[in-house]
Amino acid sequence: MSIKTKEQFDSFTKEFMASDAYRESIGFGICRVDRGQLDPQRVLQASFGLVNWRENHKSAAVLLSALKESGVALDPKASELVVDLDIGFINAALNAFAPFIDEAAGPKHQNVQVLLALAAIAEENGLDAGEYRAVFLFEDVAPQSVEAVYLKLHALSQGKAPLRSLDLSGAFGLLSNVAWVGNQPIELEWLRENEIELKLRGEYPAIDAVDKFPRYLQHVIPADNTRILDGSKVRMGAHLAPGTTVMPGASYINFNAGTTGPVMVEGRISSSAIVGSGSDVGGGASILGVLSGTNGNPVSIGKNTLLGANSVTGIPLGDGCIVDAGVAILEGTKVGVDAKSAEAIAAINPGFETAGSSPLVLKGVAFAGLHGVHFRQDSTTGQIVATRSKREVKLNEELH
Amino acid sequence: MSIKTKEQFDSFTKEFMASDAYRESIGFGICRVDRGQLDPQRVLQASFGLVNWRENHKSAAVLLSALKESGVALDPKASELVVDLDIGFINAALNAFAPFIDEAAGPKHQNVQVLLALAAIAEENGLDAGEYRAVFLFEDVAPQSVEAVYLKLHALSQGKAPLRSLDLSGAFGLLSNVAWVGNQPIELEWLRENEIELKLRGEYPAIDAVDKFPRYLQHVIPADNTRILDGSKVRMGAHLAPGTTVMPGASYINFNAGTTGPVMVEGRISSSAIVGSGSDVGGGASILGVLSGTNGNPVSIGKNTLLGANSVTGIPLGDGCIVDAGVAILEGTKVGVDAKSAEAIAAINPGFETAGSSPLVLKGVAFAGLHGVHFRQDSTTGQIVATRSKREVKLNEELH
Amino acid sequence: MSIKTKEQFDSFTKEFMASDAYRESIGFGICRVDRGQLDPQRVLQASFGLVNWRENHKSAAVLLSALKESGVALDPKASELVVDLDIGFINAALNAFAPFIDEAAGPKHQNVQVLLALAAIAEENGLDAGEYRAVFLFEDVAPQSVEAVYLKLHALSQGKAPLRSLDLSGAFGLLSNVAWVGNQPIELEWLRENEIELKLRGEYPAIDAVDKFPRYLQHVIPADNTRILDGSKVRMGAHLAPGTTVMPGASYINFNAGTTGPVMVEGRISSSAIVGSGSDVGGGASILGVLSGTNGNPVSIGKNTLLGANSVTGIPLGDGCIVDAGVAILEGTKVGVDAKSAEAIAAINPGFETAGSSPLVLKGVAFAGLHGVHFRQDSTTGQIVATRSKREVKLNEELH
Repeated sequence: MSIKTKEQFDSFTKEFMASDAYRESIGFGICRVDRGQLDPQRVLQASFGLVNWRENHKSAAVLLSALKESGVALDPKASELVVDLDIGFINAALNAFAPFIDEAAGPKHQNVQVLLALAAIAEENGLDAGEYRAVFLFEDVAPQSVEAVYLKLHALSQGKAPLRSLDLSGAFGLLSNVAWVGNQPIELEWLRENEIELKLRGEYPAIDAVDKFPRYLQHVIPADNTRILDGSKVRMGAHLAPGTTVMPGASYINFNAGTTGPVMVEGRISSSAIVGSGSDVGGGASILGVLSGTNGNPVSIGKNTLLGANSVTGIPLGDGCIVDAGVAILEGTKVGVDAKSAEAIAAINPGFETAGSSPLVLKGVAFAGLHGVHFRQDSTTGQIVATRSKREVKLNEELH
Repeated sequence: MSIKTKEQFDSFTKEFMASDAYRESIGFGICRVDRGQLDPQRVLQASFGLVNWRENHKSAAVLLSALKESGVALDPKASELVVDLDIGFINAALNAFAPFIDEAAGPKHQNVQVLLALAAIAEENGLDAGEYRAVFLFEDVAPQSVEAVYLKLHALSQGKAPLRSLDLSGAFGLLSNVAWVGNQPIELEWLRENEIELKLRGEYPAIDAVDKFPRYLQHVIPADNTRILDGSKVRMGAHLAPGTTVMPGASYINFNAGTTGPVMVEGRISSSAIVGSGSDVGGGASILGVLSGTNGNPVSIGKNTLLGANSVTGIPLGDGCIVDAGVAILEGTKVGVDAKSAEAIAAINPGFETAGSSPLVLKGVAFAGLHGVHFRQDSTTGQIVATRSKREVKLNEELH
Repeated sequence: MSIKTKEQFDSFTKEFMASDAYRESIGFGICRVDRGQLDPQRVLQASFGLVNWRENHKSAAVLLSALKESGVALDPKASELVVDLDIGFINAALNAFAPFIDEAAGPKHQNVQVLLALAAIAEENGLDAGEYRAVFLFEDVAPQSVEAVYLKLHALSQGKAPLRSLDLSGAFGLLSNVAWVGNQPIELEWLRENEIELKLRGEYPAIDAVDKFPRYLQHVIPADNTRILDGSKVRMGAHLAPGTTVMPGASYINFNAGTTGPVMVEGRISSSAIVGSGSDVGGGASILGVLSGTNGNPVSIGKNTLLGANSVTGIPLGDGCIVDAGVAILEGTKVGVDAKSAEAIAAINPGFETAGSSPLVLKGVAFAGLHGVHFRQDSTTGQIVATRSKREVKLNEELH
């Protein structure tokens, strides 16, 4: 079928989307894959020029239709589809996209741009078998392929899916542990097999890292006002909201962790931890992750909260809190609160229970998620105490 | 005018320096600029082969004279001059420098070497319009250009101007936030516009960092006995005195901060902080910067002072102090001092006030700049206390 | 002599090993050396395709014999031998190895593979004088050459020699402090001499680090399940047992330090410190090195021990210990122990002395090497206390 007008495109996609062959995807994209030097069946990395996430369903329809037309069997029950692309697919898809080709530039019709780029590559060099793949995720279940893992990490890093919202079960098992030389992944076994030759010829590569995950900056372009002073500090799958700065001292942001607004990061945001707008993770401060010291509870830090240098936080904190430099607040830390402070904290945290003897001694977990709390160690007695912080707390509507 | 002898050179420069066209500069140099990939008007980086700072005024006169001769209007009121160079300028300047050309090698006549290098480049490839610029700073006021910022950062990093001595107001506003690929800055917007093509062709660059500032090692060659185990740890504009070692753990040295003698750095030296000879910034130790926790007072650390692992220092310290591992001393920290310790501290710090009840409890700020103080936390009571440290304090003449 | 069979090879090596010319080496290998750009006599780095350590003595005999045959004088008293290789040596050695040439591939006969690689390089390009060297260590004394230092660092990093077991006296004096550009070392003085040209031509190299030591990943291929998220974090000469993960936050592993089993490393393992299987060095945790705060005693950490985030440990710890987040335990730290805890600790540490008044207050050093101790700071009193940890301690046979 020849598609020449946008009306024809609409009819075409509407018809296909009503057919049994179509299923709505949660995410899709076309990627270039890096394969193992020794084992080409092993996909080491998937690079997406464009990631679609709960959007552009007509483009998804075009790609699925083109796959079908080029002979791919579309399994109606699979949670994901990962399939090699050939020139037949490209031509079929571009045929459907014909009315948009002239407009495809800059932010417009980027899925068409992807196909045009592929067509140009194919014309220049031919397509290497298995170098390009289409990836569709139909359900948010445990990913079944390296490509699916990368697509989900992209959705998180680009902020298209909220942190902690996706099923990444088994991702570590799918990804290969490789040597990263710039953006290129190399099998460790290949290095071993070629070590003697490479070393003696002076051709041994300069390896930046050995990891299953690539770095954020290998795949994601941050916002204009976001800074990452050392690319090794942010793993792919982290999300940095615009205006976030990651300093190179002791900082680190793991995958599925990050910021939801401008944050100064000089400490560690462990896996699943999230930090809110205007907060400051001081030099060497640690926000514990679900795998270490939080009883499996992911830690969220609110807005305008200050984690002092070398402090450690193992409980969620609300807005406008302060953890003093060097202070550790874990679920089990005993924290003293005098009557006046308890009252002031309760004034902005209606659920906070101040009944009982005064001064109170509460466990750290009793402060989970509270706003405007200042945790410090009394340097005359060594006691960890909580008072009402002097940082601004903007009360949310839902709070009262 | 043809200049053939050093006497003629002296007359020539003397005459020009007495003219209205000449003004004494505080710093000058010739740089190669990297311009925006999308916006060539935007200067992303300026690389100086040589930086002159309150020195080589005759060379400055030659360059200014050559600029004038090549048609540049010299504004007598501007705080700085940044101007594109052409072959006319190079020839005019080399004409004036003629008596020194044969001697220009190694450490001798480096401004002449710069011009000879430019002349060679021009002959080989021609000069790209706007690739090379002369930069003169006539006053130490807020810089007006990227080139002026870089010249000042160089003066700081090379130790030609003391840390904290230069006006860098507005520097953040002048510098562009770019992706650094090795020494090359790339506009983020250019990456966005080319992302699809670059990713699908496997040509997406390996980005080391995204920041406004380059790294120290991109522009500065350290002394033979200075070590920087990870280039990401030192920002351009920091100064490392010879013999300084920067370890790769939790260390970081910001611009306009650094060391004045051999220092072991395993922690953070925040912006405007300065550490003296023989001191040791332990693993993960934080010296707070003017933007965080010091009430805007820059922190200086004296000589032979030890900041223990994971300690935090928010007040200036003198010589021979110790802050124990894990201890935080901020302006407001209450510190206990017994009578004997107070006396011993006062013995080497004549201004230290020990009057009043004993044991004293003083705020951290009361110890600002004192020598020979050991801050520790009594592990039986939790109290932060100060005693006379056992580290050597060499009393300065001015102290008594 | 022509050697055609393995029997002839055995006779040949047996005879040579019985001669005066042969001495048993503790380590040997053939390396490619990087020499100074300005001073070619200065060896900046030695890259070994293969390291032999207390193994493959017949191969050593072949190489020594070939050296002798190619005219090298073998000093029977020298502690090490470092000598340039020529084509005569290669031919002599391959002649002796003839029966193994066809089998030399993969893990088999790797010394033969080294020689075959050299022969191929020689045929393609000729051998640059002094580019390849044979290195033999006959005694474990202070190394006399850069090549000997590298061979020992390799033996440590590859786990062929235990950490702390080798004499590295004077290594710092032998190694040159150089700029590392990927795997290439560059003399700082060469950079200075060429700075103007390189900067103005846009050819100034992107320097990763300035140090005497290379990074571990420049020379060592880790096990398949070992991860190093930032190559700058591990110095050559460190040993990472399989399964070790080094995160990029505040971690660092110095030379002659490392792990003896799978360890999660998010903190600092200083020179000479060793961490046992299943232990966790939390984010920003510091294990002090022999040069800082341990009275020169190297710190060993046992198995299944947890060092909390931003903790500091200056004493050796046994198995199943915990140092709480933010707590510092040094030799002189006063630690309280109540009677019940003292009893529980003594139950698994027969040497632990609990006699005397209760509660005890002991110095940190009294806990050196004990198993199952939990160090924490009582957050109501500020006291540092020790209790019996809840982590599993597997009692060793030798313990009871």
